[in-house]
Amino acid sequence: MKVVALAGGVGGAKLVQGLAGTLPPDSLSVVVNTGDDFEHLGLRICPDLDTVVYTLAGLADPQRGWGRADESWNFLQALGSLGGPTWFRIGDRDLAMHVERTHRMRAGQRLSRVTADLCRTLGVSVRVLPMSDDPVSTMVLTEEGELSFQEYFVARRCTPRVQGFRFQGAQRARPAPGVLQAIETAALVVFCPSNPWVSLDPILAVSGMRQALVSKTVVAVSPIVGGRAIKGPAAKMFAELGVEPTALAVAEHYNCLLKAFVLDQEDRDQEREIAALGLQTLVAQTIMRSIEDRLALARAVIEFAQGLLVGEVSV
Amino acid sequence: MKVVALAGGVGGAKLVQGLAGTLPPDSLSVVVNTGDDFEHLGLRICPDLDTVVYTLAGLADPQRGWGRADESWNFLQALGSLGGPTWFRIGDRDLAMHVERTHRMRAGQRLSRVTADLCRTLGVSVRVLPMSDDPVSTMVLTEEGELSFQEYFVARRCTPRVQGFRFQGAQRARPAPGVLQAIETAALVVFCPSNPWVSLDPILAVSGMRQALVSKTVVAVSPIVGGRAIKGPAAKMFAELGVEPTALAVAEHYNCLLKAFVLDQEDRDQEREIAALGLQTLVAQTIMRSIEDRLALARAVIEFAQGLLVGEVSV
Repeated sequence: MKVVALAGGVGGAKLVQGLAGTLPPDSLSVVVNTGDDFEHLGLRICPDLDTVVYTLAGLADPQRGWGRADESWNFLQALGSLGGPTWFRIGDRDLAMHVERTHRMRAGQRLSRVTADLCRTLGVSVRVLPMSDDPVSTMVLTEEGELSFQEYFVARRCTPRVQGFRFQGAQRARPAPGVLQAIETAALVVFCPSNPWVSLDPILAVSGMRQALVSKTVVAVSPIVGGRAIKGPAAKMFAELGVEPTALAVAEHYNCLLKAFVLDQEDRDQEREIAALGLQTLVAQTIMRSIEDRLALARAVIEFAQGLLVGEVSV
Repeated sequence: MKVVALAGGVGGAKLVQGLAGTLPPDSLSVVVNTGDDFEHLGLRICPDLDTVVYTLAGLADPQRGWGRADESWNFLQALGSLGGPTWFRIGDRDLAMHVERTHRMRAGQRLSRVTADLCRTLGVSVRVLPMSDDPVSTMVLTEEGELSFQEYFVARRCTPRVQGFRFQGAQRARPAPGVLQAIETAALVVFCPSNPWVSLDPILAVSGMRQALVSKTVVAVSPIVGGRAIKGPAAKMFAELGVEPTALAVAEHYNCLLKAFVLDQEDRDQEREIAALGLQTLVAQTIMRSIEDRLALARAVIEFAQGLLVGEVSV
C-alpha cells in the first residue's frame, strides 16, 4: 500500500517516523510544509523539512523538538559577538545543512533535488518532498499587523493575537516534482498531527493540491488532544479565531477533504459528533512520547485505513 | 608618527600586533592582502584579513597560525556527513565571521565598511583596511597549469612547482577607501614580514599603489631568515623561480620601493650587500615567537625609522 503523509514540524515528523518503521521501504512519501521557510543570514532555512529529515535520519534532538541532538552553539555565540542576529537559534551542526543547501540552490539546484540528495547522503530511504520548489511564505495576520511566520513564531513567541493567515505565493506555486504523482498512486493520504493553520494549510494552498486530494482516501490525525495542542500554538490559534480548540474543530477544519479521522482516547466523547460529519473514526493513543508510541500509532492508522479501503471496495 | 603597515597572513599579523602595542591609537593603519579571498560554500572568505583581525582582537589561535583559538569543528564534521566539501577547514566560531560578512556584503555593504564595523564590534582600534573593495584573485602559474591561490595553497599544499603569479583584476581594482589617504599622511610605511610573492605583491599590484608609495619612507622586514621562510612557501617560491631564498633576494624583490630593510641577526652577513642596493639596514631579531618578540621588533623598526626620518630632514 502506497502512502503519502502531509507533515509540518515535530508532531508530523514523529508520525512520519512511525510510518517509516511500519511500511515497507519505497511505499512512503512525505510532503512537507515549506511555508515556514525563510532567508536568514543569507541562508535558506527550512525548519519543517529539517525536522522531518533529522527525525528520519535519527539526528533530531529528542527534547528540544527542533535541530540536532548533541548540538553545540559556538557559531551563534561568535555571531553575537560580531553584532549579528541571534534571535533565531542555529546550532553548529544544523548550520551545515543550511549552508550546504543554500550553496547547492545558488548553484541552480531546486529544493526538491537538494532534499532528495541530502536524504540519500544521510541514509533516509523515505521519499521526503518539499510541498513546492516555488517560494510560499506563511504570513500571520495579527492585531499588530501582518507578521512573517518566523517573526510571529520565534521572535514574538506567538504572543500577538491571530486574526488569520495568508500563504503568499501559494496560488502561483506548483507542487514539487513527484508530489502529484505520489498522491495519485497512493492508496492512503495521512494528514499528520501538525498545526492545521500553519503546517498543513500551506500545503493545501499550493495550486492543484486540493484537487489532487479530493478523490483520495484521506485520514487526519488530530493535533489537538483534550483541548490543547501537544506542541505549538494550534490551540491558541483556534481560540483566537473564535473556535473552541477540539478534535472536532480540527475535523471540521479539513472538512470535505477527509474520509476518516483519528482522535485521542481523551477525546472519545467527541467521536459521535465527528462521525456525524460523515467521517469514519478511530480512537487511539495519539500522544507520541516514545519511538514505540510512534510505531503503535502508525500501525493503528495503517490498519484502520486498510479496513476503510477494504470497506470501500466491498460496499 | 602615522604608520601604514602592508600585511598578508601570520607573519604580517604578528608585526602588526607589535606595532599596535607600540604606537599610540589612531596612528596605525594596516592595508591587508585580499588576493587570497575566495568564495567557498557561497561565503566570502578573507583569510589574511581575518588573520589580522583575529590577531588584533586577541582571538587568533596561537599555534595553528590561522582561525580562532578554542575552536570547535562540529559544522565541518556535519558538512562532511552531508557530502559537502571539507578540504578548506572552517571552525564553528570562525564561520560566524564568514556568514556575517557575506550577509552584510550581499545587503550591499563594501568589504572595507564591513571590516571597519566588525573591527569596532570586536574592539580593534587599529584601522584595518582591505587593499581593495574590488575583486582581485591571486593566480599561481605552475607546471601543472594555473591554479587559484587556495587551490594551490590548501588543496594542493603548495606542491606544484611555481612558474609565476598573476593578480587577476588588480589593474582595474582601486585601493579601498582610506588606503591612499592613509599612505599619503603616513611618515612611515612598513612592509611586514609576509610572503613577497603572494601577500604583498597583490597589494602592490592594485592600481595606484606603487605610485602612492614611491615618495614614501618604506621599510621592509624580511620574511626569509637563514634561507627559510618562517612560515609558508615563500622560500620554496623563490627557489622554484630560480632565485636563492635570502634576505637579499627579498630586498631586491621590492627593489626601488624601499628606503630601508630589516634583516635577521642570522643573516647579518648579507647586510653589506643589501646596503649596496642603496638601502639603510637594521639587523634585528625578526622571529616573533612571543608577544614580547612582536613588541620588541615593532619598537626596533619604529626607532630605526625615526632615525631615518630625522636623517632625511638633516641631510
